[in-house]
Amino acid sequence: MCAPSAAPPAATPAFDPAALRFDANGLIPAIAQDHATGEVLMLAWMNAESVARTLDTGRVTYWSRSRAAFWVKGESSGHVQRLVELRVDCDRDCLLVLVDQTGPACHTNRRSCFYTAVREGAEVEIMAPLE
Amino acid sequence: MCAPSAAPPAATPAFDPAALRFDANGLIPAIAQDHATGEVLMLAWMNAESVARTLDTGRVTYWSRSRAAFWVKGESSGHVQRLVELRVDCDRDCLLVLVDQTGPACHTNRRSCFYTAVREGAEVEIMAPLE
Repeated sequence: MCAPSAAPPAATPAFDPAALRFDANGLIPAIAQDHATGEVLMLAWMNAESVARTLDTGRVTYWSRSRAAFWVKGESSGHVQRLVELRVDCDRDCLLVLVDQTGPACHTNRRSCFYTAVREGAEVEIMAPLE
Repeated sequence: MCAPSAAPPAATPAFDPAALRFDANGLIPAIAQDHATGEVLMLAWMNAESVARTLDTGRVTYWSRSRAAFWVKGESSGHVQRLVELRVDCDRDCLLVLVDQTGPACHTNRRSCFYTAVREGAEVEIMAPLE
């Protein structure tokens, strides 16, 4: 008869936001990528609490360095990022956030912040603001 | 008859690596993305000179913070990144580098450094090392 205390299957390690590697300011860079198209939308910063809030709420929440405050993406603009999946890199010092982005991610009203390409030594705008 | 000194078309601004916004250590984060698949491969750091070298040579060249030295990606491993296009974000404080990646980008021999997902509070490995 099986003992009720039989060993469980090998557990996957629990994720602890505080165990990430933060910089001297307690921040970690987070890359937001459109989960459906693969487009890289933006890079912003998180602290341990904003990582936890992102996971808890499903709403991507950064730390605004300029305002020194939590920044629930889209809270004022409506251009929210719904969390699809959070990924951690090998060094635990960078995050990849797969998101469902409503409207533009960029404050310039473009879908992505990376709308300027360098071509033959010149800056070229490759993406127009959304209508 | 047209004057030979007729005004040229509106010029695109020349790109100057020194005009990017670097952090207190003179560095800017650079996201490497597979130009063909859209997969985000890694994030590393560049200084102005490594941005210039990347553009000049077509070989993606980071600044290694741990070694305090230029890091021509793949120079020792053979897992080079050929530059396809460099892009700058709206705040000029982050780069997106579209690359043609030979082999794995990650030192763990995985294609991408972002091989750990957080699912239901646990860390899950979603990508195996390449053979």
